[in-house]
Amino acid sequence: MRAAVFHGRRDIRLEDVPEPEVRPGSVKVKVDWCGICGTDLHEYLAGPIFIPPPGSPHPITGETLPLTLGHEFAGSVVDVGEGVEDVATGDAVAIEPVYRCGECPACRRGATNLCAKLGFYGLMGGGGGMSEYAVVPDYMVHHLPPGLTSEQGALVEPIAVGLRAVRRAGFQPGQSALVMGAGPIGAVTVQCLKALGAGQIIVGEVSQARKRKALEVGADTVIDPGEEDLVARVKELTGGEGAEQSFDAAGIQQTLHGALRATRRGGNVTIISIWEGPIELNPNDIVLSELNVRGTICYLPQDFADTIAMLQDGRIQTEGIITERVALSDVVDDGFNELVDHKDRHVKILVRSSD
Amino acid sequence: MRAAVFHGRRDIRLEDVPEPEVRPGSVKVKVDWCGICGTDLHEYLAGPIFIPPPGSPHPITGETLPLTLGHEFAGSVVDVGEGVEDVATGDAVAIEPVYRCGECPACRRGATNLCAKLGFYGLMGGGGGMSEYAVVPDYMVHHLPPGLTSEQGALVEPIAVGLRAVRRAGFQPGQSALVMGAGPIGAVTVQCLKALGAGQIIVGEVSQARKRKALEVGADTVIDPGEEDLVARVKELTGGEGAEQSFDAAGIQQTLHGALRATRRGGNVTIISIWEGPIELNPNDIVLSELNVRGTICYLPQDFADTIAMLQDGRIQTEGIITERVALSDVVDDGFNELVDHKDRHVKILVRSSD
Repeated sequence: MRAAVFHGRRDIRLEDVPEPEVRPGSVKVKVDWCGICGTDLHEYLAGPIFIPPPGSPHPITGETLPLTLGHEFAGSVVDVGEGVEDVATGDAVAIEPVYRCGECPACRRGATNLCAKLGFYGLMGGGGGMSEYAVVPDYMVHHLPPGLTSEQGALVEPIAVGLRAVRRAGFQPGQSALVMGAGPIGAVTVQCLKALGAGQIIVGEVSQARKRKALEVGADTVIDPGEEDLVARVKELTGGEGAEQSFDAAGIQQTLHGALRATRRGGNVTIISIWEGPIELNPNDIVLSELNVRGTICYLPQDFADTIAMLQDGRIQTEGIITERVALSDVVDDGFNELVDHKDRHVKILVRSSD
Repeated sequence: MRAAVFHGRRDIRLEDVPEPEVRPGSVKVKVDWCGICGTDLHEYLAGPIFIPPPGSPHPITGETLPLTLGHEFAGSVVDVGEGVEDVATGDAVAIEPVYRCGECPACRRGATNLCAKLGFYGLMGGGGGMSEYAVVPDYMVHHLPPGLTSEQGALVEPIAVGLRAVRRAGFQPGQSALVMGAGPIGAVTVQCLKALGAGQIIVGEVSQARKRKALEVGADTVIDPGEEDLVARVKELTGGEGAEQSFDAAGIQQTLHGALRATRRGGNVTIISIWEGPIELNPNDIVLSELNVRGTICYLPQDFADTIAMLQDGRIQTEGIITERVALSDVVDDGFNELVDHKDRHVKILVRSSD
């Protein structure tokens, strides 16, 4: 079968790889759609980062690059391994791609997103969603209920990241929220905030295309920190106090500084972004205002399941999220290189496993 | 009357100042004991920092330096202004020195420690505890119950900072705690953790004198990060995971990095320290482990009242906290300069308002 295989920086190849066979405790899925994640793009441009390089096999998969990419995907079950219950051939499914070592303290207490071995299917081995078939451990499988398309199924993973962030923040209906950055994660965070009843959603963004997108996906106001005084404007919009909830979905020093200073005293700043390195930060910005600064990573199984439920009942709207659909054979030029050249135009590019 | 007056860096003078008169809504206190705070020392060495300099009067007090110092004090009521209820001449009291503008959103919702005008009696005007008499707004007055000495009354303020920190952390009985730094605030944090039932208290500290002091005030283990691998040792002591609760009471880059890395995934890091400027920090240290990083400043009136109650019933022990008692006339040489020269030997130096 064909698969998009990561060989190194700027080197993703469409290759013929052996079709995977189902094993005990695993499920074989015919992939319909797979999203290109910001992490995939980051690996393409600057990797291997999370992808295990030669000589350093991943502790769960035992694999190193070259590896098949793709961890945001949905499809239908075509085979079921020995011992798997509650999954049958023909089932429509979305895949929660987080491996569980099952032995570390975090896994033992159910915090699978904090597994000490941090394993991702489609990034650190096992196969990937940018291929025709994927064989995954049964615990990664979530059923897609009637009425949800497999396109929506491929969006569950990134949206679950936004839902986890909003939950980690301790967000309450009616609160004001500031989201720094309207890339894919910022956009899904806006949608989750909207779904959970935000009183006001303000987005900080400098790109013209993303400013428009932020409004399209549900922001009430977009502030361009390059043109306006972000902190003053957020305070003006929130009765003088600043946002009750802020989210950094951009991952640059200025956006986090902006989030810290535009949040009201005693408020919450949740960091969703992954960082390229250290930044300068004055902890007094956290101390003197008694802020609550929380990190958030991936999602728990419950967040994944709830995202599916909220997509089904329409609480989470996906309008505006899918900005392009490409065939697997075109994934490098029309997927990765398109994102390199015109990142601002896109939220999510979906890859079709068949042509 | 005599008072210790701050004129500028390294310039605190014992002076005769007019004895303050009681005003409507205020209470006149004969000071017994007043502690020297780390903030006072910081002002002495590098100020004015929080003290309003000439030309910038404080928005609540309207004053600039020279100002009388002292915000950790207790004594007895000698006069009561018009309209003051529930306070009578002869009452033993401790003073909660936080001004309330009463108008900002934080004050309006009861978060008096986050008042937009941030005013401290004994630091930003109004008078101070390093003098014979102090006249304070009635809302600053807390009664000292029978059995509590005025020495203990002078310790309520710093201990309330520790109690607030432990409460902000969401600390639960039985949890493991790491406290970085065993200066005055680190020491009272250890005592509050002990009072609230910590399962294990680990202190990170490099000074020999403070390492001894940490054990004296209740630490189970002291780690010297200059001699041992702090993170590895904390993990070893906490079943491999790291501390459930960490506190930075030192305010330097290395201690905060240590706290972040020695905390278990999903755990809590509470920053009590005030910082001299920006540090380098990689937000991934917060994101990838889903830490909860909280700032904490001062205390709420309830924390102050509860500290008094916990001192009275013996839950909070103050043994080892008072390391020296000096007369007001000796406050510069035996108080401030002693702390400059031998800071590590001391937790709290108390100043007696009479000779």
